[in-house]
Amino acid sequence: MTREEIIAQIRTKRSFLCVGLDTDLAKIPAHLLDTDDPIFEFNKAIIDATKDYCVAYKPNIAFYECHGPKGWESLQKTLDYIPDNIFTIADAKRGDIGNTSRYYADTFFKYLKADSVTIAPYMGEDSVTPFFEYPNKWVILLALTSNKGALDFQFIADSKNEELYKKVLRKSQEWGTDENLMYVVGATRAEGIGEVRKLVPSNFFLVPGVGAQGGSLEDVAHYGWNDDCGLLVNSSRKIIYASNGKDFAQSAASAAKELQEQMSVILDQKNF
Amino acid sequence: MTREEIIAQIRTKRSFLCVGLDTDLAKIPAHLLDTDDPIFEFNKAIIDATKDYCVAYKPNIAFYECHGPKGWESLQKTLDYIPDNIFTIADAKRGDIGNTSRYYADTFFKYLKADSVTIAPYMGEDSVTPFFEYPNKWVILLALTSNKGALDFQFIADSKNEELYKKVLRKSQEWGTDENLMYVVGATRAEGIGEVRKLVPSNFFLVPGVGAQGGSLEDVAHYGWNDDCGLLVNSSRKIIYASNGKDFAQSAASAAKELQEQMSVILDQKNF
Repeated sequence: MTREEIIAQIRTKRSFLCVGLDTDLAKIPAHLLDTDDPIFEFNKAIIDATKDYCVAYKPNIAFYECHGPKGWESLQKTLDYIPDNIFTIADAKRGDIGNTSRYYADTFFKYLKADSVTIAPYMGEDSVTPFFEYPNKWVILLALTSNKGALDFQFIADSKNEELYKKVLRKSQEWGTDENLMYVVGATRAEGIGEVRKLVPSNFFLVPGVGAQGGSLEDVAHYGWNDDCGLLVNSSRKIIYASNGKDFAQSAASAAKELQEQMSVILDQKNF
Repeated sequence: MTREEIIAQIRTKRSFLCVGLDTDLAKIPAHLLDTDDPIFEFNKAIIDATKDYCVAYKPNIAFYECHGPKGWESLQKTLDYIPDNIFTIADAKRGDIGNTSRYYADTFFKYLKADSVTIAPYMGEDSVTPFFEYPNKWVILLALTSNKGALDFQFIADSKNEELYKKVLRKSQEWGTDENLMYVVGATRAEGIGEVRKLVPSNFFLVPGVGAQGGSLEDVAHYGWNDDCGLLVNSSRKIIYASNGKDFAQSAASAAKELQEQMSVILDQKNF
């Protein structure tokens, strides 16, 4: 999917919502457990219920691969089921030496046909660039993550007082463009989002941490906005587990709609 | 597998060799492609041929997951086939927020029953510690990798002149012990291995980069040795693709034996 197509979807749907498909057998409604593929049945219902309110879906691969081959089948069926005009993010946080990253690129872009994959930057350039060989596919590089452990290394400053996450941003700007590279920037670090936006004015951000992790949508929009919106804000648990009864899909739709309406207000305020 | 069992295997086999199972359909002998599961058939023959010369096997997950569910089946069969007294490393380079890393731990320790998994440190403590909840299982944390991109971020020094990889070592010593935590330290950075050894005298190192990537076994032993050997030296392509004819297994055995003999000399020199 191209940048222009993503922006067009945001304009049309009045939403920059990404729904995280962190589908966990221990949390989905009990009545689905008797079906052949409970994970896919759950995702299918969630997608049907939320697809008008979001512009992206993000399955986190950990929740699928813990079920082995069957989990990969559920993942593939889920990605196939997502409408073509909705951006798909394989949240995999991969990264290996260049020779090996090529195979990960094959997995997510050729085999699963996702539009994008999240990548960890620790191993540097050759672990990231093989993913750019696929046209209209995206790397979403971890910059500033939403978890507590982000404080361990991402804020380490060098002798010129530049923090590691800024170095990752600056260096990676030499590798990709705003047409194939986004960044993960956690909503739990709102001022950090502003710092990131200063350094990379034009790239899109994938922003986790709104909802269950406590980040605020208004702050994210305040600090992260650019002329093309430039934001995909993810919510997982707060939407997909809004209810675990028979009304789970309807409750997910309401939760997604609520966020979409808040986003619509922001888009109006920004005259977007 | 416990640390004592790993050390006992090194003593018995006179080897600290890890064979990397980076099994690629484009590189394995053509006659295997007609079998039901060429990847497993290849691995099975390689394991039969090399198991007396090595103490560990390391499938890199990228080479399996690019084939989808079938690749995961090949991976599972491979791990099941490896004799119980040989240490298994799922080279996955995973890492996510704590809630999610738990599922990756399930994947590699409960589902695939590997003894260890490689983890990327960028997301910090809560992305690593869930893996320690499994007794006698290991985290192998990326510290100093063997690839060119290692230079992008791992050597960034803070105002006290401490490089990122050293920070990763120092900080992670608070999370794990030498009974559940090893480090990836690339053979292509021999002096670096010495620096790492000074900081973490007792943990084992997984050392890739000997062979195809150009690192020297003697240098690795010189800089990385500790009282318990403390080294697992990996070779992948140079062993498993020693030949791509019908004699591939025999050639792999010779290549593994050659390395084992060099290791045996080193172990003798060290009176181990």
